[in-house]
Amino acid sequence: MGVNRQLRLAQRPDGLVDDSTFELVEEPIPDLADGEALVRNVYLSIDPTNRVWIREEPSYLPPVAIGEVMRSGAVGEVVESRNDDYPVGATVTGLLGWQEFSVLGAGVFARVVPAGVPMTAVMNVLGTSGMTAYFGLIDIAEPKPGETVVVSGAAGSVGSLAGQVAKILDCRVIGIAGTDDKCAWVTDDLGFDACINYKTEDVGKRLDELCPDGIDVYFDNVGGSILDHALARLALNARISVCGTISSYNASGLPEPLYWYGNLVSMRARMEGFLVLDYLDRFDEGAAKMLEWIAEGKLKAREEIVEGLEHAPRALNMLFAGENTGKLLVKVGDEPAA
Amino acid sequence: MGVNRQLRLAQRPDGLVDDSTFELVEEPIPDLADGEALVRNVYLSIDPTNRVWIREEPSYLPPVAIGEVMRSGAVGEVVESRNDDYPVGATVTGLLGWQEFSVLGAGVFARVVPAGVPMTAVMNVLGTSGMTAYFGLIDIAEPKPGETVVVSGAAGSVGSLAGQVAKILDCRVIGIAGTDDKCAWVTDDLGFDACINYKTEDVGKRLDELCPDGIDVYFDNVGGSILDHALARLALNARISVCGTISSYNASGLPEPLYWYGNLVSMRARMEGFLVLDYLDRFDEGAAKMLEWIAEGKLKAREEIVEGLEHAPRALNMLFAGENTGKLLVKVGDEPAA
Repeated sequence: MGVNRQLRLAQRPDGLVDDSTFELVEEPIPDLADGEALVRNVYLSIDPTNRVWIREEPSYLPPVAIGEVMRSGAVGEVVESRNDDYPVGATVTGLLGWQEFSVLGAGVFARVVPAGVPMTAVMNVLGTSGMTAYFGLIDIAEPKPGETVVVSGAAGSVGSLAGQVAKILDCRVIGIAGTDDKCAWVTDDLGFDACINYKTEDVGKRLDELCPDGIDVYFDNVGGSILDHALARLALNARISVCGTISSYNASGLPEPLYWYGNLVSMRARMEGFLVLDYLDRFDEGAAKMLEWIAEGKLKAREEIVEGLEHAPRALNMLFAGENTGKLLVKVGDEPAA
Repeated sequence: MGVNRQLRLAQRPDGLVDDSTFELVEEPIPDLADGEALVRNVYLSIDPTNRVWIREEPSYLPPVAIGEVMRSGAVGEVVESRNDDYPVGATVTGLLGWQEFSVLGAGVFARVVPAGVPMTAVMNVLGTSGMTAYFGLIDIAEPKPGETVVVSGAAGSVGSLAGQVAKILDCRVIGIAGTDDKCAWVTDDLGFDACINYKTEDVGKRLDELCPDGIDVYFDNVGGSILDHALARLALNARISVCGTISSYNASGLPEPLYWYGNLVSMRARMEGFLVLDYLDRFDEGAAKMLEWIAEGKLKAREEIVEGLEHAPRALNMLFAGENTGKLLVKVGDEPAA
């Protein structure tokens, strides 16, 4: 009987997580009951929404309870099974948690990934990041050829993919990111038309220069003052797809305010939030499209990998410090031999 | 040749309008050119958006220029015509301005109203107020039977009609208004399920009590802190129809901020602005429906009438002080004999 290392929520953080937020525990890997399967986890998906899940206030999912294994998307390999839906050797993905092994069946579900798909792609372009970008842009913002699309968090997993999809749809795409290197990546490697470094440039002034006819679509990952800059510059019939508001996730007080919402009226514009969980039954459609674009060389994905379960909390903080480029993963086990 | 009294914009106001904002001038009524018609105005429509039109910043219509007759919806009678589209005796409505006579044809257009429709109804339930309520609720907010609909500015022209339409559609309707008398009117006379007096009650606490399952539809005329209270209490898949943001129209600085926009994500909710001008080609459809409901006794309209062109500026301020109940009109001439 092996050992399962887990990170359990020890106390709710005030601001960024730290050493006191999670407790690293070791548990025996349990024997499987009928209908269960054991997954050896390989990559954990590190996402801004993880921080929302450990707040005290309920959100779209119940808060992770104190003492519970930290909730997380992950991908792994079935290593033992008493459930025909999860055959040994299958790659599976789901909310497997911050742990090295997960038991499927008792309230924990996962979907089996077709053979041959790289695990990093399962976590990124074909997983929740890719599907968030795909449906949040296409279904919520409905971009049309020639429109001006602005994407915040442009060098993050979702933003980098959303901007590329907008380019594929023949839009003009302006990114907003936090370092010159990130801006160079999204313009030089990903083909965005321009990128604003919000830490060194005047975002409002640069948006005025880059979007002289206003913003048709704003795909927003951050909320706060950058969202307000976009609201102040909407084009007629603009659509704001609110993917997330990372600027507020560590705040214990009020988030940054918005002032320019009155423009929604004069511009007959719409601001709409969404969650990728509502698109689970359309993932196959989205994934097929993303795979097609990757095969055609139109879409690039990038992962940044932190090694070791014990570094998951530090990785989570990297998101809020803007230290990652592309999809941030924590590797907790080796990939299966090909 | 008669005299036309007009109110022309003299200078842009800082806050509420006052005696220095408009200048009362007398002009000879001009001779008509071919294609023109002369209208004797009867009622001016006093609307919050009038205040937006005299701000310096362009909005959805160009600002009224200094020296120009104040822009305003109005209804009147054609008294002289060299245009077969506007026969003498016809009732017409359009942006006829704060004046006693208007010349149609030279950039000023109006639509002819079917005979027999009262002029007050043309200005209220069948005019921009009624159509704003109808399309802003039905087209933008898409209320479904059983849903909880909250309406701000509930005793105003648009809010009182929007709430009644929501009741006709079998929704639970909560109004928000500024006096106990207004609240009594919308609950006792118009059939709203409840009404919150935002000047004497804790709006957040009352919304918690009255909307225990959250707000499905918020039809908003005011913006600001009341909109923020609604954002904090959205139900899943909620829709906010942003009709106007009257709380900001007199502000020279920033409007009141919003903080709870992050709930748009967790509740997969949408906030959408609209202008009734975009529905001009569907007015007949909306008006037919409103007439049907009036005939069935399901919809009531109320007008509050201020007498005399010279009182139009004071009437405009009444809107911002919340002094009117129902549609506010300024009467500048007698109704034609029946």
